[in-house]
Amino acid sequence: MAANKNPRSQEPNDDLPLVYVHRQTSFGLPLKDRLVNHFRLVDPCDCDSTHKPIDTSLSNSVRALVVIGYTPLTSETLSFLPSLELVVGSSAGLDKVDLQECHRRGIVVTNASLAFSEDAADYAMALLLDVLRRISAAERYIRGRMWPVKGDYRLGSKLRGKRAGIVGLGAIGSEVAKRLMAFGCTIAYNSRKKKPSVLFPFYSTVCDLAANSDILIITCSLTPKTRHIVNKDVMTALGSEGLIINVGRGALIDQEELVQFLMRGNIYGAGLDVFENEPHVPEELFALENVVLSPHRAVLTPESLEAVQELIFTNLKAFFSNEPLRSVVHIE
Amino acid sequence: MAANKNPRSQEPNDDLPLVYVHRQTSFGLPLKDRLVNHFRLVDPCDCDSTHKPIDTSLSNSVRALVVIGYTPLTSETLSFLPSLELVVGSSAGLDKVDLQECHRRGIVVTNASLAFSEDAADYAMALLLDVLRRISAAERYIRGRMWPVKGDYRLGSKLRGKRAGIVGLGAIGSEVAKRLMAFGCTIAYNSRKKKPSVLFPFYSTVCDLAANSDILIITCSLTPKTRHIVNKDVMTALGSEGLIINVGRGALIDQEELVQFLMRGNIYGAGLDVFENEPHVPEELFALENVVLSPHRAVLTPESLEAVQELIFTNLKAFFSNEPLRSVVHIE
Repeated sequence: MAANKNPRSQEPNDDLPLVYVHRQTSFGLPLKDRLVNHFRLVDPCDCDSTHKPIDTSLSNSVRALVVIGYTPLTSETLSFLPSLELVVGSSAGLDKVDLQECHRRGIVVTNASLAFSEDAADYAMALLLDVLRRISAAERYIRGRMWPVKGDYRLGSKLRGKRAGIVGLGAIGSEVAKRLMAFGCTIAYNSRKKKPSVLFPFYSTVCDLAANSDILIITCSLTPKTRHIVNKDVMTALGSEGLIINVGRGALIDQEELVQFLMRGNIYGAGLDVFENEPHVPEELFALENVVLSPHRAVLTPESLEAVQELIFTNLKAFFSNEPLRSVVHIE
Repeated sequence: MAANKNPRSQEPNDDLPLVYVHRQTSFGLPLKDRLVNHFRLVDPCDCDSTHKPIDTSLSNSVRALVVIGYTPLTSETLSFLPSLELVVGSSAGLDKVDLQECHRRGIVVTNASLAFSEDAADYAMALLLDVLRRISAAERYIRGRMWPVKGDYRLGSKLRGKRAGIVGLGAIGSEVAKRLMAFGCTIAYNSRKKKPSVLFPFYSTVCDLAANSDILIITCSLTPKTRHIVNKDVMTALGSEGLIINVGRGALIDQEELVQFLMRGNIYGAGLDVFENEPHVPEELFALENVVLSPHRAVLTPESLEAVQELIFTNLKAFFSNEPLRSVVHIE
């Protein structure tokens, strides 16, 4: 059915390679004009309502698929594409893609973290500085007209010399490390395994990393294994002077516990770009001064959205030319 | 009169070098315990109400003076200290010290910018990222419970690749440059004169610097020559996509003009830690989303306050031992 909805796909150029566009209707396809010159797009455009997105003759031939935004890609959808070899993701985290199924079938998956890593790292630094130096809180103090009435706002704490622990030293985590060094922080990390080319100290558990850090910066991807990777034990190990910055996914942290730790002052503060049940933010956080709340913006700028389009295009071209792909996801 | 107010100065150890403590009563002297072991302190502690702070026998002998906080040091006070050779400032900016009079009399002046430079640079970066990525504004959006109602907050802009122009490449400006490089910005600067050891492009006027920058970061000291150094012409040269970050002094910018530029959207935004008439902030700014307001906190953390005490102590010891001073102010 759906393929016919797209006027361009009614006049396919059969010489061009087939690319399946997997997206919820709420996600546009800004790079369409560019793609159609190089690929024959199959864009049913309504993944919510159909389990059999395209007719069998096309679906049997599709070798490459692009997931737009956070559109879920289930094993059921994948089962209608028997020839699929490549899934090109357009977000940094692919927790809504059934990576295990892709792995089982030998489908290669790429994400967009390369395109987003700089902006995400910038945002992590911004949240860190904001929490540590109490900038948003001081902003509210000024806009609340308190400065002339109540005098100096209380001081934050110095960044230099703090021990930063990065959870997930991928594209984003590495960019964060680069920035932290310029601010005079020491750096350690946790990831699936020690990276031979990295000189920073490695801790095999997040709990050990937290026990040896003043700041935890969460940049890893959300998988069944990393869900609630920052739990009560980790926060206890981090201690009452510790900070948590999360630019990954909300469910990487046990949010209920985090709220308790923040309310009791059992950690210094947190900078949160992501939450477990977005756009809903726990009500208790609105009253707190030691948390900076951000509406899942870390990776997004007009420039990064442009870069992700470039990356999608490059990866599709590379795939059909048998050239190396960029930003390949390693699935365990 | 006043010297007798300080119990310690009633039992002076005449072998120790005299140090005059110049402060308003509102400023404490946290490093007193340390200083009294090495110096004979003269601390009238009430500079507002007296023009003749100490009796003549002492005032004639004083060679070194410490200014605490932002206490004004006028030529009149200086006139009562005919032997004065050194003024040790305890803030980064010394706009309340009559530097010209010091210069005329050959009095050496040191400031505390070395102790404050890292925190000030961190804060400048925090304000820059905040304005560019709209973090405080997004915070208000979330706390105002708008996210579930109105959806995604509008995107900010990417930092990487932006052209940063630093006004005043001293201790603070140099630390800012170090950080900006880690974020992938290009850097140029303006200062009194080109610095032979610095490779960044130099512009001899702030207007030229602004015309070639996306971001202006103001870190220079306030003097009669730098008052309103960022004026209407500079803001026009910076352009409607430009950002201004001020961690120097409020009067470095023509604040009235800046308010107009921000209100009309004739610049992208501003991050302001300082204002012309603190603690008063122009009323118009409270309604704007493109400005981040901060209550003069950039240089202050518990750690920097400790470092400034160390610097004061070190400079006094160095002076009386004929050793080189740190953080000497160059007065033109």
